[in-house]
Amino acid sequence: MRAVCVIGLGLIGGSLLRAVAATGRRAWGATASEADAAEAAAAGFEVSDVATALRRAGEENALIVLAVPLPAVESVARRVAELAPHCPLTDVTSVKAPVADLLSRRAPNPFVGGHPMAGSSESGWSAGAADLFHGAAWVVTVDDGTDPSVWREVAGLALSCGAHVVPATAAAHDDAVGRISHLPHILAAVLAACGADGGPLALALAAGSFTDGTRVAGTRPELVVAMCEGNRAALLDAVDDALGRLGAARGALASTGGLRATITAGHSGRTALEAHRAQPTSPVTIDLDAPDALADLRDLGAAGGRVVRLDGHHAVGELPDGE
Amino acid sequence: MRAVCVIGLGLIGGSLLRAVAATGRRAWGATASEADAAEAAAAGFEVSDVATALRRAGEENALIVLAVPLPAVESVARRVAELAPHCPLTDVTSVKAPVADLLSRRAPNPFVGGHPMAGSSESGWSAGAADLFHGAAWVVTVDDGTDPSVWREVAGLALSCGAHVVPATAAAHDDAVGRISHLPHILAAVLAACGADGGPLALALAAGSFTDGTRVAGTRPELVVAMCEGNRAALLDAVDDALGRLGAARGALASTGGLRATITAGHSGRTALEAHRAQPTSPVTIDLDAPDALADLRDLGAAGGRVVRLDGHHAVGELPDGE
Repeated sequence: MRAVCVIGLGLIGGSLLRAVAATGRRAWGATASEADAAEAAAAGFEVSDVATALRRAGEENALIVLAVPLPAVESVARRVAELAPHCPLTDVTSVKAPVADLLSRRAPNPFVGGHPMAGSSESGWSAGAADLFHGAAWVVTVDDGTDPSVWREVAGLALSCGAHVVPATAAAHDDAVGRISHLPHILAAVLAACGADGGPLALALAAGSFTDGTRVAGTRPELVVAMCEGNRAALLDAVDDALGRLGAARGALASTGGLRATITAGHSGRTALEAHRAQPTSPVTIDLDAPDALADLRDLGAAGGRVVRLDGHHAVGELPDGE
Repeated sequence: MRAVCVIGLGLIGGSLLRAVAATGRRAWGATASEADAAEAAAAGFEVSDVATALRRAGEENALIVLAVPLPAVESVARRVAELAPHCPLTDVTSVKAPVADLLSRRAPNPFVGGHPMAGSSESGWSAGAADLFHGAAWVVTVDDGTDPSVWREVAGLALSCGAHVVPATAAAHDDAVGRISHLPHILAAVLAACGADGGPLALALAAGSFTDGTRVAGTRPELVVAMCEGNRAALLDAVDDALGRLGAARGALASTGGLRATITAGHSGRTALEAHRAQPTSPVTIDLDAPDALADLRDLGAAGGRVVRLDGHHAVGELPDGE
């Protein structure tokens, strides 16, 4: 099995290094954070500076995982191009089209993007855990020109960490996460600020709805800013949708006083989420060597399906019934 | 100890009847819901129709608690005026100024409003529990003309259910809950609808931020609509604040691409919530027979403080240090 080199040992990279090592695979890491490096080394992991880790990746033809914050991807990509230009490459950043575009210009490596949908409002090595990805969705991108053999490597990495794989184009991923990850952070920030504007009495009365609705506003601001700004185009669409809906609620409240349309649409959306999670699925098998493999993977992801296992050159998946 | 008559046996009323009965106090209830009535009776509680319950309240001079949904308050208030016009009266609805206004016109009873800040997205008798109010804030209104002896009765009821009491004017309550309870429901509805607009892929990728941010959108729509529409004036202010902040984020994202101001303000708001909860407090005692009692209670609540115990004619409270 190919070795794994993880660059960046924060919450996601640190959890990934633990998870990969737990499967018995050869794995090492590097980070610019002295605190994360010291903690990872103390926990018994092989940690070095970025150049040393990448040089070793080149020698061992390892799978390189970029787990650095978005603003650091470009400079690390230059080091990858310099020290390990032939290694297969993936990333775990929260936006896929801009990263694919950047890497196509900065690194010649065969690349397939990834994004594990797991996290917490904590950050750094100490917040990580080997089981962080258990049961989580992990997007592995499928775009025109994607090399199915690299896709299989990256999907295999995700599956070995306990995640299931959702295939999607970079653009479809960015649109979706704009709505279900980045917009929630914007609305949580807006809500937290509006609540605090209510002063001590409002904070004293805050119960479940405010606590839940503002939880992710506790995340380190620089991480959220980088994540949301990195998905600017798709997030703008999502924010415009939210502004339109909130403006309509405002108009209805001010004129007829009626909020039924707003609340009913929200209830339907939440019901759709719960229905999706409870929906029975049927098994599907996709031959990754077939000419339609990429299209079949994309269709599976677009229909809300997932890959749960690799069987030789086949991806074994689950497709929601009725999609 | 004065008996308690609870009208409405849904989540809140049903939990209240259980909690009061558990203290050994004489208590009975009534509800228009046959399902709730049957379940409450099967659990061993005294349940009758509304007229019978109110007649008994009049005979025993019980404390009457209106725990019906907001749209039903007016018709029940007419029955109270007819059958038990001398009993002290409180309510547990989510908006205080409109209810106080309505009751001042419909029922001659000595009234002090209440609002326990507890709940769940479930509803009905079966969702209730005797410990629902443990550790929760319970607003007991303090307005000009409030009778301190009725205030003490209502505060005593809340404390006996395991809650702490937050004194506030009806208007200050409505402003605060517009921000920390009703606005969260509106934003959760907007977020849920925007997420579902992203189709099956978006729902398949939804993780913690979307799940937490939309949880209360799963509440029965008619309850949320009634609650939010009932607080129309205060909620409009809160929605306008949110629209302004979301519009500013949109503008910044579209022009400079920068979201730092939005995210930082949200992080500060969330930090303020956590700081409020962790803040040390100093004990205060308020003489409920003193001429300044109402003003002292209002000041305590406005500063984020609470009443935790009644000691004869004194309210014993906690005031956050530094407020």
